[in-house]
Amino acid sequence: MRIAVLGTGPVGQTVAAKLGELGHEVTVGTRDPEETMARTDQDNFGNPPFAVWASQHSDVSIATLTEATAGAELIVNATNGAGSIEALEAAGEQNLVGKVLLDVANPLDFSQGMPPSLFVSNTDSLGEQIQRRFPDVRVVKALNTMNTYLMVDPKQLAGGDHTVFISGDDADAKNQVTALLESLGWSDIVELGDITTARGTEMYLPLWLRIMGATQNPMFNIKVVR
Amino acid sequence: MRIAVLGTGPVGQTVAAKLGELGHEVTVGTRDPEETMARTDQDNFGNPPFAVWASQHSDVSIATLTEATAGAELIVNATNGAGSIEALEAAGEQNLVGKVLLDVANPLDFSQGMPPSLFVSNTDSLGEQIQRRFPDVRVVKALNTMNTYLMVDPKQLAGGDHTVFISGDDADAKNQVTALLESLGWSDIVELGDITTARGTEMYLPLWLRIMGATQNPMFNIKVVR
Repeated sequence: MRIAVLGTGPVGQTVAAKLGELGHEVTVGTRDPEETMARTDQDNFGNPPFAVWASQHSDVSIATLTEATAGAELIVNATNGAGSIEALEAAGEQNLVGKVLLDVANPLDFSQGMPPSLFVSNTDSLGEQIQRRFPDVRVVKALNTMNTYLMVDPKQLAGGDHTVFISGDDADAKNQVTALLESLGWSDIVELGDITTARGTEMYLPLWLRIMGATQNPMFNIKVVR
Repeated sequence: MRIAVLGTGPVGQTVAAKLGELGHEVTVGTRDPEETMARTDQDNFGNPPFAVWASQHSDVSIATLTEATAGAELIVNATNGAGSIEALEAAGEQNLVGKVLLDVANPLDFSQGMPPSLFVSNTDSLGEQIQRRFPDVRVVKALNTMNTYLMVDPKQLAGGDHTVFISGDDADAKNQVTALLESLGWSDIVELGDITTARGTEMYLPLWLRIMGATQNPMFNIKVVR
């Protein structure tokens, strides 16, 4: 499948690399590819600059947000939550219409100190904001409840015996994302319902952050024991 | 131990009954015991009136909020979250000072429709509100992330192989609550940190509600797989 992964941070890199490995035709979309490739600094997490990663993943293309989405059958939103709608607007609504948008972003707000709070929650969510702004895009929220390395390789923890959630209004889009999740190794996929259920998974982030703070290890996930 | 359980709803009843079974001297505190005992209606969940429950649990006493807390060594807040601070004020600050308050309530707001949202979240929590209002009470938030029947009998699900969280500022109070949780059958107790970490567990409730909506079965809990 032709997949655009929007975002060049650790999540975008990890997701793009894995989808490339799985045989998909992956393009990473970024506002200004030349600027992205010219960066020489490590990111905030100490990761090497994007060009280093790109040189190690020659199967993955780099393009503008517009080019990446225009040719894509499925789009992954791995941008910073605070910039997601702006990035999607920069991609161009005409390049998104009718497509499945797998939204893995979270509405983290770092302005109130650490750990971050959420800039939208409780009676709304980032998933809903994106769906409202782009009503003809088929938004599916998933994979936003664990570390990016577990997102793409759940079996490295307890043989994959833990849970991923899925929210969205479009049944066919959810089926497509479910198949993609299964191809990543997910077996316990809990479909929560329409896109308003993204409030639930996004509001879990504060608990994720506290568990991470207490255990000092991001390689955990929750399992719905039932 | 002499324990006051504040609240006469299903959570208060279930917690009081179990603590009584475990040999504690339990008093259920309610604003007006006569009025509570005189009720003849089922509650919103179809449970029988309180007096029926009380007649089946003669080991548990009923008293005013003041009387129940005055004699207690440990207090369980099982009141409706929206009325918790008012109920604690009615109990009288002098009856709470220095005591461990196990807060199992959640700040559910039913005014915006179902499923409920939260009336405090993100940059504050009910646990923190209670701690701020009663600075000399040793507030410990726990057991607010699962169905009341699992709260008091975790082993009925997967042999107890799932998680309970604990938040609070006072280490000794957390130790006391941890011992109480262990006596209920909890073995995977994750201590998150100070009372601000209650934001995490309270903000998990929206996800709990969506999982419940999707699975139509409240007898689940999450396990932190790590």
